[in-house]
Amino acid sequence: MTQMESARKGIITKEIEAVALYEKMSVEDVLSRVGEGTICIPKNINHNLKVVRGVGSGLKTKVNANMGTSKDYCNLEEELQKIDVAVQAGADSIMDLSTGGDIKAIRQAMIERSPVMVGTVPIYEAAAVEQYKDGGAVVNMKEEDIFRVIEEQAEQGVDFMTLHCGVTRQSVEALKNHKRICDVVSRGGSFLVAWILHNDKENPLYEKYDRLLEIARKYDITLSLGDGFRPGCLADATDRGQIQELLILGDLVRRAREAGVQTMVEGPGHVPLNQIITNMQLQKKLCDNAPFYVLGPLVTDIAPGYDHITCAIGGALAACNGADFLCYVTPSEHLALPTVQDVEDGVIATRIAGHAADIAKGIPGAMDWDNEMAVARKKRDWTAQYNLAINPERAKKVRGDRISEDEEVCSMCSGLCAIKLVEDYFKKK
Amino acid sequence: MTQMESARKGIITKEIEAVALYEKMSVEDVLSRVGEGTICIPKNINHNLKVVRGVGSGLKTKVNANMGTSKDYCNLEEELQKIDVAVQAGADSIMDLSTGGDIKAIRQAMIERSPVMVGTVPIYEAAAVEQYKDGGAVVNMKEEDIFRVIEEQAEQGVDFMTLHCGVTRQSVEALKNHKRICDVVSRGGSFLVAWILHNDKENPLYEKYDRLLEIARKYDITLSLGDGFRPGCLADATDRGQIQELLILGDLVRRAREAGVQTMVEGPGHVPLNQIITNMQLQKKLCDNAPFYVLGPLVTDIAPGYDHITCAIGGALAACNGADFLCYVTPSEHLALPTVQDVEDGVIATRIAGHAADIAKGIPGAMDWDNEMAVARKKRDWTAQYNLAINPERAKKVRGDRISEDEEVCSMCSGLCAIKLVEDYFKKK
Repeated sequence: MTQMESARKGIITKEIEAVALYEKMSVEDVLSRVGEGTICIPKNINHNLKVVRGVGSGLKTKVNANMGTSKDYCNLEEELQKIDVAVQAGADSIMDLSTGGDIKAIRQAMIERSPVMVGTVPIYEAAAVEQYKDGGAVVNMKEEDIFRVIEEQAEQGVDFMTLHCGVTRQSVEALKNHKRICDVVSRGGSFLVAWILHNDKENPLYEKYDRLLEIARKYDITLSLGDGFRPGCLADATDRGQIQELLILGDLVRRAREAGVQTMVEGPGHVPLNQIITNMQLQKKLCDNAPFYVLGPLVTDIAPGYDHITCAIGGALAACNGADFLCYVTPSEHLALPTVQDVEDGVIATRIAGHAADIAKGIPGAMDWDNEMAVARKKRDWTAQYNLAINPERAKKVRGDRISEDEEVCSMCSGLCAIKLVEDYFKKK
Repeated sequence: MTQMESARKGIITKEIEAVALYEKMSVEDVLSRVGEGTICIPKNINHNLKVVRGVGSGLKTKVNANMGTSKDYCNLEEELQKIDVAVQAGADSIMDLSTGGDIKAIRQAMIERSPVMVGTVPIYEAAAVEQYKDGGAVVNMKEEDIFRVIEEQAEQGVDFMTLHCGVTRQSVEALKNHKRICDVVSRGGSFLVAWILHNDKENPLYEKYDRLLEIARKYDITLSLGDGFRPGCLADATDRGQIQELLILGDLVRRAREAGVQTMVEGPGHVPLNQIITNMQLQKKLCDNAPFYVLGPLVTDIAPGYDHITCAIGGALAACNGADFLCYVTPSEHLALPTVQDVEDGVIATRIAGHAADIAKGIPGAMDWDNEMAVARKKRDWTAQYNLAINPERAKKVRGDRISEDEEVCSMCSGLCAIKLVEDYFKKK
């Protein structure tokens, strides 16, 4: 039985218990939300997952870190190091997006290394295998290849899978007549668009959705319904292509729920600040409050090298208004395969966004952390400040590199520390 | 005559012309807004300012970079380098907050080096001189010292000055009975609180506000009414102390306008994401739409080492909803005097926030930049992408460090570039 099926039967699994404990939510609330599908607990039955997390309504905002090889940079050791760094920095999940090297073996190693849930985009493997053959091409994927890869990955223990089931012949046709600057920037989406056009066939992930649901149900894989038509620039945001796909994804959420399969919905992307709330409300409404997993949103296109920041801005506002799961974006986005340092920077920036949103939403316990830090600041208790910092090592290093003569304060204000001064004179009076 | 006075007479100064040109706004609109005080043009009559900028209603969001020495780190060359780096990164103004070394000489050098407007907090100089005497203390400042420093700085050509005129005896009394975690974190505010308590006297900047207005009028200094009671942690945000001061600042704005003196109002600070819009609306309403200059707001307290990011999140939402001028926060905030690299990182993060807000607000031309980048991305025109990037050198370096074998794409997707693939198959059909 999937978590959703057993929740509907009122069975309290140890995963439901773990989520309730971590979230300071009652077991009954978690149970009913998993049953209705507004919370998912991605965990493959074949995965001995150490850290179980729920994603969805009323829960702490979760953070995902993408990693994996490309044809240009394929170094398993580095990818494994990225897992360690991401988890250390507080990521709730990782996605292995490898497209270079021995993809299956890499994934096996990554699943073994990761204490947190693991996601993939199976079509990447199917496509990479075809594309990197001599004279090969993505469009040569066979329907059976795609399903075989999905089943293999399921067997390996992948907890959630991005599947672009909403990319249909009809939407590809519509895209041709519809003015967009960047057309399709979703990698999985682009493979399917190319495949549909070249083969003049319907997307098998849409047409054979029931087959997909069967596999997902068998392994309790959470489907993450990909947004193949997500905007790749601000100008393309919230347009016909994007919303049309969202309508389809809403229908697919309902079908998955009927089949007892857990689902999330993926969202944009590049979105102007003033369209983020609209996007969150639309997804929640059209997809019956399915957990919403967003990539960004990036609030401007002009900052390559800093897209962890453009993403943190959009992610904070998104999570405040409905997004449940934030996929990080690293400083290397749009430019290169991320480095290990990029992974750390991306996770921290995204956690900041998620935490700021959790405070705003009143998630139990979120504000306590800030209050403890405020008290430590007031006391000039630097050990406590380091320990409470989202990245203690970084805080220690920054202060240590430019330490003040007076150990009680920092070198910015030196002898003119506002907190100390006011305390001194309040005490005197 | 101040810009405000001449605007009221319908005189089109070259500064008004410069602002109108830069902002793609009509000269008439700028003129009437400067006259009513919803736009200020900080420029001291003694300052041969190269880059003239307006701050306020309907204009592009402006970005300020703080710098200056402390007792622990006092290196003029480094501070001058910070000016160069900040201006190169796109700062619209700098503030010299020096409290270490020969403060007057340092300021003179900084004013000479800066092509952009220069702000100060005069009480820092007055306080530092007293505090760093043998056995000295901030509270020994004499009223005359404070006004002498203000007049000297005015003569040197400072364009705008932060003055904490809203810190009054009454509000200090109220603070004693009012529960706050961090009490006062504004440095200038803390000097005045200590001074008021120790000397049992009213704040001279409040009591002798007319004297201040006279100096400001003489040199056309823009008063930036400081928020001495700004919250220093999320828990203290939007509280009695903060709003009480804002009421006073609103009154002082009206008195300044009557005297023909340009003013801005300063705002928080540390503010939860869900209180930012409230804060913006309150300031705009209570201060008759005076230009709003905010420090942050930082949306969480737990990220020392990353406060340029916590600030970018809050700043973007603030600028979207009323803030006109964003003071950057660097990664060293709460930990140490910022380095040159911190200055660059802080300016860029804050510019990203301002630009994202400008797009959302529909500031003329803002979105064009993003659209050009989107077109360059679609074309895989890397030269154009670098040139359009907010920091071309950084974008070039990130891609260059992990270049793809295929010059047309990047090493993240290598042979599986979505944009390229879709274009190929769209073209074929």
